Order: sequence, then C-alpha cells, then structure tokens
Amino acid sequence: MAAGTGRKSAAGEDSRVIRTRADVARTALDVLVTEGSDALTHARVAEVAGYSKTTLYSHWPSRFDLLKAALDAIGELPHQEPTDDLRADLIGELTMFRQAVVDRHLDRVLSAMAQWASVETMAEIRDALNTEAQRPIRGMLETAFDGARLEAAISMLAGVVACPSLMFGAVPDDDVIEAAVDIVLDGRKTKRARRDSNP
Amino acid sequence: MAAGTGRKSAAGEDSRVIRTRADVARTALDVLVTEGSDALTHARVAEVAGYSKTTLYSHWPSRFDLLKAALDAIGELPHQEPTDDLRADLIGELTMFRQAVVDRHLDRVLSAMAQWASVETMAEIRDALNTEAQRPIRGMLETAFDGARLEAAISMLAGVVACPSLMFGAVPDDDVIEAAVDIVLDGRKTKRARRDSNP
Repeated sequence: MAAGTGRKSAAGEDSRVIRTRADVARTALDVLVTEGSDALTHARVAEVAGYSKTTLYSHWPSRFDLLKAALDAIGELPHQEPTDDLRADLIGELTMFRQAVVDRHLDRVLSAMAQWASVETMAEIRDALNTEAQRPIRGMLETAFDGARLEAAISMLAGVVACPSLMFGAVPDDDVIEAAVDIVLDGRKTKRARRDSNP
Repeated sequence: MAAGTGRKSAAGEDSRVIRTRADVARTALDVLVTEGSDALTHARVAEVAGYSKTTLYSHWPSRFDLLKAALDAIGELPHQEPTDDLRADLIGELTMFRQAVVDRHLDRVLSAMAQWASVETMAEIRDALNTEAQRPIRGMLETAFDGARLEAAISMLAGVVACPSLMFGAVPDDDVIEAAVDIVLDGRKTKRARRDSNP
C-alpha cells in the first residue's frame, strides 16, 4: 500500500501498482458509462475489477477520486485533421465526435460530470475537459465566425450530436450532420456583410 | 400506510397522503437538482423532507420511484405563444428554455435522466418528456424546414442553450441566442430553393 506514494515517477513505482491503477481506472470508466454515476462506488468497482475494497480505498479515498480516475481513462479523443475544405472538416469532426459518443459513451460521461458539478473541483475538471474537446471545432469555426455567432455556431454543432444522444439516447444520421454544417455555413454571409459595411 | 393504495382518486385519498406525496416529490426534485442523482436516496429525501424512511419506502419502494416522483414535480414548462414572427417566436422560446434551465435546473434533470437511461422504463420516460419539451420549437421550425434540416435545426437550437449548461454550467447571453436563430433562419433558403426546383 505504501508503494507509489513515496516515489511518483513511473520508474520508481512498483509495476504492480501501475497495473492496478490502470485496471481500476478502466473499470471505473466502464462502470460509469454502462451502469451510470450512481454505480460508481468502491464496492462495485472492486467487484468488477477483481481487487479488494481496501486496495481501492487506499489509492482512491473518495468516490470523487474514482470519478477522476475514470475520466483519466477516457484518453485523447480522435479529431479531424484540418484541410482547406471547411465543410468537409466540420462534417469529419462531427462524425468523429458521433463515433466517440457511440464507442466511448461520451454522453454518459458528459451527464455524469454534470451530475457532479456541485463539487467545485469537478466543475473545473469538466470545464477543462470540455474546452479541450471543443478546441478543434472552435479553431475551424474561428476561420468563419467571431463574437456571438462563433459561440452560437460552436454550441449548435456540438448540440447536433450531443442533444439527440443526451435527450433520446440516439445519434444523428449523416444527412442530419451535413444539414447542420450547411445551415451553419450559410450563416457565414452575415459576418462578411458586417465586415464589408464596417471596414 | 394502507391509505392511497386501495383508492386512487384524489377524492378517495386521504388528504394527508396527498400532502405527503407532494412534499416528498418536491423534495426529491430539489435534492436531485441541488445535490445530484447520487444523493437521491430514501435516507436523504426522508431527512430533507422530514418524513420517516419507512413512509418513503411505503410510497416509493425503489430509488427509481423517487426519481419518477421528482420528474413529476417539474410540472409544465412555460412556452412561447406562437405569433406570425418566426424569428421572435424562436428567440422567445429559447429565452424561456434558458430561464427554465436557470430556475428549474433542467440541465441537472436532463443529465440525471441520461444517467438512469440504462433502466429501460427510464429511457421511455426521458424520451417522452424530451419529446414534449421540444414540441413547441419543432412546431415553429416545421413551418420553415423539413427532413434532415428540420432535425438538425431542432438539435442545434436546443443545443445553443443545453450545451453550454451541460458542458460548462453556463447559459448563453441574449446575443448568442439571437445569433443562433439568425444562423438557422438563414438556412431556410435551401428548402425554398429545393421546392422551387422540385415542384
């Protein structure tokens, strides 16, 4: 139990502890997305991962620590590599987001984080994760929008995938993603018009 | 404890039972939105509402029953009365949705329902509630869109309020709501163009 507390580097940590941490983090994420936030308890994760509750409490004293471990286990999300075709880039990015919702149950992760947001540290972690997840689409849309239209466009395109999954447990078809991107890109004209009239 | 089980009509039910049910449902909703889905237990609701755990278990045998009681306590959401000004109607409807997120913590309700969606009955209740909540904006947008564009527009406008609240615990400013409506209404042209070319 003392292993891993005195020396934090991977080289210094006992390999058994490293494996335990990885096993439990993956299991915690699995329990979170398949059984919901309520099931994320030391007893349930210990049972599924095959470790003792004592081991879990020693590494993750609180349920909040288990949640943080689960979030760490998500890893990096795949993103669309930007090209010079904004429409194709946005469709690609949203299609990858949809795939991550299906494969990694990001809707469950998002709603679990929202449930825990009354814990201040959790709100900070959530904001940081969501800011990072939105960074690519923000970068793409910044080439076409600014101000309120930029913020609206980001929420709207995130929403076309996130809303159906959170509200109905379903993801949008390709044609709905394409329609959303086309509607947003039609809205570009106003920024140009505004720029032309206010040089 | 037997009261209210034999006779279901409001007239037949003991007034004390009716009051208990209403008190506990309101408290369950309050606990859900202020403390999160995990806190929605018989022990916690009994403590806050000032009833015994025995009373709670007799009326709501499972935590799922407590959740259903909490959802019932939300009541009807306020909606924009449609006029002949689609832009104003959409902005009005989204502004009311934003107010309900602030006043009734609908973001917490939505994420709690998503956490419980692995329970099949809960998924059905969630789908029904969300379909009902979206009905007015769907009705407004049906006057301007159909097919994939209609589904995209609904998710996008729901998303402009829901996404910031679920992802960052914040609601959009007026100018972001207006920008979202303007972006979506710019997208109307394509439906007209399609109709003109396919009479």
